[in-house]
Amino acid sequence: MDKSKVSMAVVRRLPRYYRYILELSDAGVDRVSSSSLAEKMGLTASQIRQDLNCFGGFGQQGYGYNVANLTQELASILGLDQGRKAIIIGAGNMGRALINNFNFRKCGVALTCAFDTETSLIGAHINGVLVRHVDELDGFQKQYKPEIAVLTMPKSAAQRMGERLCKNGIKGLWNFTTVDLHLEGIDVPVENVRFMESLMILSYRL
Amino acid sequence: MDKSKVSMAVVRRLPRYYRYILELSDAGVDRVSSSSLAEKMGLTASQIRQDLNCFGGFGQQGYGYNVANLTQELASILGLDQGRKAIIIGAGNMGRALINNFNFRKCGVALTCAFDTETSLIGAHINGVLVRHVDELDGFQKQYKPEIAVLTMPKSAAQRMGERLCKNGIKGLWNFTTVDLHLEGIDVPVENVRFMESLMILSYRL
Repeated sequence: MDKSKVSMAVVRRLPRYYRYILELSDAGVDRVSSSSLAEKMGLTASQIRQDLNCFGGFGQQGYGYNVANLTQELASILGLDQGRKAIIIGAGNMGRALINNFNFRKCGVALTCAFDTETSLIGAHINGVLVRHVDELDGFQKQYKPEIAVLTMPKSAAQRMGERLCKNGIKGLWNFTTVDLHLEGIDVPVENVRFMESLMILSYRL
Repeated sequence: MDKSKVSMAVVRRLPRYYRYILELSDAGVDRVSSSSLAEKMGLTASQIRQDLNCFGGFGQQGYGYNVANLTQELASILGLDQGRKAIIIGAGNMGRALINNFNFRKCGVALTCAFDTETSLIGAHINGVLVRHVDELDGFQKQYKPEIAVLTMPKSAAQRMGERLCKNGIKGLWNFTTVDLHLEGIDVPVENVRFMESLMILSYRL
């Protein structure tokens, strides 16, 4: 599979496919047709077949999709089976909300450490995750080579921190600050969590 | 404009249009062609024209879009000019992260009150927002008629709280819990903020 040939519109639908197929799997369903999956998801059957064909298909005419097989294929496409390590920069409210409530494991990611500058937090464990001082970050990256950094620090520090993390080998940034990071010449994907877009869509739908 | 005829795929692009056009506006740009907007946004010019035509067009051949005009039209389509009021249920980490850092005003929404059950929080102000006890919620809704409720309480309480809020007249739910709300027979839109999908997309892109 050549990832560069798959449009981001298709990629953005993959986690939804994964979520729905996981629900079927959890409910003990063995196989599903593209049309019944389409109905559940509010898409058309032909769109589903077209999307999944970008990655090799996985369905059989007259049978549909084998749920266990498709679950595993989607997990593999999404890289959820890679055993990746993440660190979180900023143990304020947003950071703590994620550390306490977000299921990193369900995304195949191990959250290994938190970093902050607030001395009262250093050395504490939040939901089992140790908070270290940001001064230890570079050394930590060299030693443990986490792939993903979650940015939950104040936005004023986001750009510099993003650059620093990338310089020390981070492979992807999950950005909760409202700052658009400018990482020209650095080939590291940034996934921005944009609360504003979500509230605007709700506002539209009222 | 008949909203029911516009696909959710188009709707989900609207906030991105708004964000980019607002950037141009802030940069003092007067007009923009669909092709240069397309380049900035990573879309095609024909897609942009097609999307905006769902709402009446706003562009002129050979001129492009008037930035000030399009900004205002998009704000109006998204309902950002409606002066809506929101309340937030749950002043834990996630709730506080939003109260302290999220710019509700930029979405045309006034965050008027927070609710929690934790007695040590009741009566406190967080970034100017008063925390009241959940026992006061029904009366508050009757008196002030907020349109939007932000759900940031523990997920075990989400379903019951969603129903209660709707029964008392809420018009839309912005759901940060990981629970899928089942509000059959209640015509209230729910916008789910799904962190998991975002991390999975990052994982794919690594």
